Amino acid sequence: MRVLFTTRRRLLVDSQPRPPALNSLFSLLSPRKYAAETAWRRSSSSILGPDLPDVWNHPSSASPPTLPSPSGNQGDDELNPTIINGKIIAEEIRSGIAAEIRQLKDVSGKVPGLGVVLVGKRRDSQSYIRHKIKDCEEVGITSLLAELPEDSSQDDVLNAVSKFNKDPSVHGILVQLPLPKHIAEEEVLSAINLEKDVDGFHPLNVGNLALRGREPLFIPCAAKACIEILLRYDAELVGKNVAVIGRSRVVGLPTSLLLQRHHATVSVVHAYSKNPEEITREADIVISAAGVPNLVRRNWLKRGAVVIDVGTNPVEDSRSEHGYYLTGDVCYEEALQLVSAITPVPGGVGPVTIAMLLSNTLESAKRTFGLS
Amino acid sequence: MRVLFTTRRRLLVDSQPRPPALNSLFSLLSPRKYAAETAWRRSSSSILGPDLPDVWNHPSSASPPTLPSPSGNQGDDELNPTIINGKIIAEEIRSGIAAEIRQLKDVSGKVPGLGVVLVGKRRDSQSYIRHKIKDCEEVGITSLLAELPEDSSQDDVLNAVSKFNKDPSVHGILVQLPLPKHIAEEEVLSAINLEKDVDGFHPLNVGNLALRGREPLFIPCAAKACIEILLRYDAELVGKNVAVIGRSRVVGLPTSLLLQRHHATVSVVHAYSKNPEEITREADIVISAAGVPNLVRRNWLKRGAVVIDVGTNPVEDSRSEHGYYLTGDVCYEEALQLVSAITPVPGGVGPVTIAMLLSNTLESAKRTFGLS
Repeated sequence: MRVLFTTRRRLLVDSQPRPPALNSLFSLLSPRKYAAETAWRRSSSSILGPDLPDVWNHPSSASPPTLPSPSGNQGDDELNPTIINGKIIAEEIRSGIAAEIRQLKDVSGKVPGLGVVLVGKRRDSQSYIRHKIKDCEEVGITSLLAELPEDSSQDDVLNAVSKFNKDPSVHGILVQLPLPKHIAEEEVLSAINLEKDVDGFHPLNVGNLALRGREPLFIPCAAKACIEILLRYDAELVGKNVAVIGRSRVVGLPTSLLLQRHHATVSVVHAYSKNPEEITREADIVISAAGVPNLVRRNWLKRGAVVIDVGTNPVEDSRSEHGYYLTGDVCYEEALQLVSAITPVPGGVGPVTIAMLLSNTLESAKRTFGLS
Repeated sequence: MRVLFTTRRRLLVDSQPRPPALNSLFSLLSPRKYAAETAWRRSSSSILGPDLPDVWNHPSSASPPTLPSPSGNQGDDELNPTIINGKIIAEEIRSGIAAEIRQLKDVSGKVPGLGVVLVGKRRDSQSYIRHKIKDCEEVGITSLLAELPEDSSQDDVLNAVSKFNKDPSVHGILVQLPLPKHIAEEEVLSAINLEKDVDGFHPLNVGNLALRGREPLFIPCAAKACIEILLRYDAELVGKNVAVIGRSRVVGLPTSLLLQRHHATVSVVHAYSKNPEEITREADIVISAAGVPNLVRRNWLKRGAVVIDVGTNPVEDSRSEHGYYLTGDVCYEEALQLVSAITPVPGGVGPVTIAMLLSNTLESAKRTFGLS
């Protein structure tokens, strides 16, 4: 048993399988055996959801097929909200990745590589990149940074991507968004080799995520992080009402598609929704990625809901170290009064999202080495 | 002015632009001019929805950005439901397509071609194919039918697709689904040349449909038909609550993605939804494609809702000519008592869907001829 989440009032433990002890005979293992031995990481199929047939009940009955009984979080008279600690989850994932990379290096002499393209001097982008590169180093992923000036041409950016595409030591390519306005984002993202699209933004990856029965090469990191957190929290997803707030390519869209593969009933709320709070108030699970501080107030939430706050909004504050602090989309203090679980900002989805980037890069390298 | 819909109690007229008179000087027109002259057909961008920025209001207010005022259909005290006549809409689209194909033939000596792959003897599939081929003939599209026996191998089916891929007279390829169980549907659909994927099921087309700012080569016909009907009905989509019932690749998934591009607030209800009737009851527009006769009862619908019934369910009936009759997902007589508009089955979405197949095939041919 291990501590999974720290909470203000209690500790949660889980009974998930442990990472296997490092196998000293690793170098003797076949690729298939290797894959089996590193099964501590959640398989793609579990992240993509169970394959269930669409069988409707007899039409005269409106009730759905029999489902496993819901987890008991929602009926509690006394709510005792779990604060889901993303740092601990991320740390655990990173340590699994680090162990696997050490094995990989022993076997093949190679390590995964991540190519990062950063255009311009946006403070938030630079800060994200710093975090990502630091985490890469920590787990043993080599990172290569192509830093381009703000006034780079479209061709300059495409060339940087193309160089990483050709570099066999690079297994994942990350173009930090947003790009300066004069650069056609879609064109740059399309130029990334599909096999190195660790952000999962390529339309073919998005199509394969949308279509049940198909498997994308990569699932966008933030969407994967939301599902990973919910699965670790042991949240039931089948048949649950989920409101996704925001519909970006980075979070809202892929998260809504992934949740549908888990057979949740998904409503996507966005800036043009006429009654966003009415829809989210019906949701068992609320995933917010609108990018608006304190958008989700008390009256947007059902008692007992699980809240995943993907918003990471800088709010200016001269007293803070960097001149700003980060806050989520959800009014945290209000939410605490009625939810059953919530991810804080910072320290919630953010670190898990970066861990998923590392995981996608490792997966990609393993595919290249014939080990996945 | 012209009659657009026949209803039981009233006739609706619309003020959409008319197809331009056939231009006798057509053969002198440049491709660009040609495209402009055939603008009677709705442009892809209008089917794909307006490009609106995601600007959330100030967080303390839950209300969305200012929107155009809603159409007045829903507040009527006396409901006077419009029966949307898909046959008339389809006829109008077909006659536009036929005129354009005549022009195309005059200019280039060529006509669009549709390759159809039919495996086995399913009665419903044979009937669909008959309708599609008849409609092709009517508008001047050449159809080529590859009929394969039920026990064909995967390779036989792939060969049929490959032949159509290579045939320059074929601009669209349609594999009639479902395929026999021993054939891997995904593999067959993936084999269709992306430029000939008139059904729009290729993951790259689905990804480009999901991602705002991108344009798929083809939009799945039933989804396109639903939007075409709603746009002709002058239904407001921005900010409206839409419930999509069913999540198939053929209808539910692409329709939900397309509606999101029109800035509707979309909830996707499916066989595992715990309270489908509660969600659909909140919807201004209900699009049902579950394949279950009479699934949607009176208590699933809000007063004044617009109902698009994509279900086409054969119900055995020895008194019917073919041994069965067709019925939709929606309990029609119950719905009539409270909706503001509804598509009947048959004669609603079905004919418009086939018209969209013809339209996709023509678009594809025009792309090949450099005329789009």
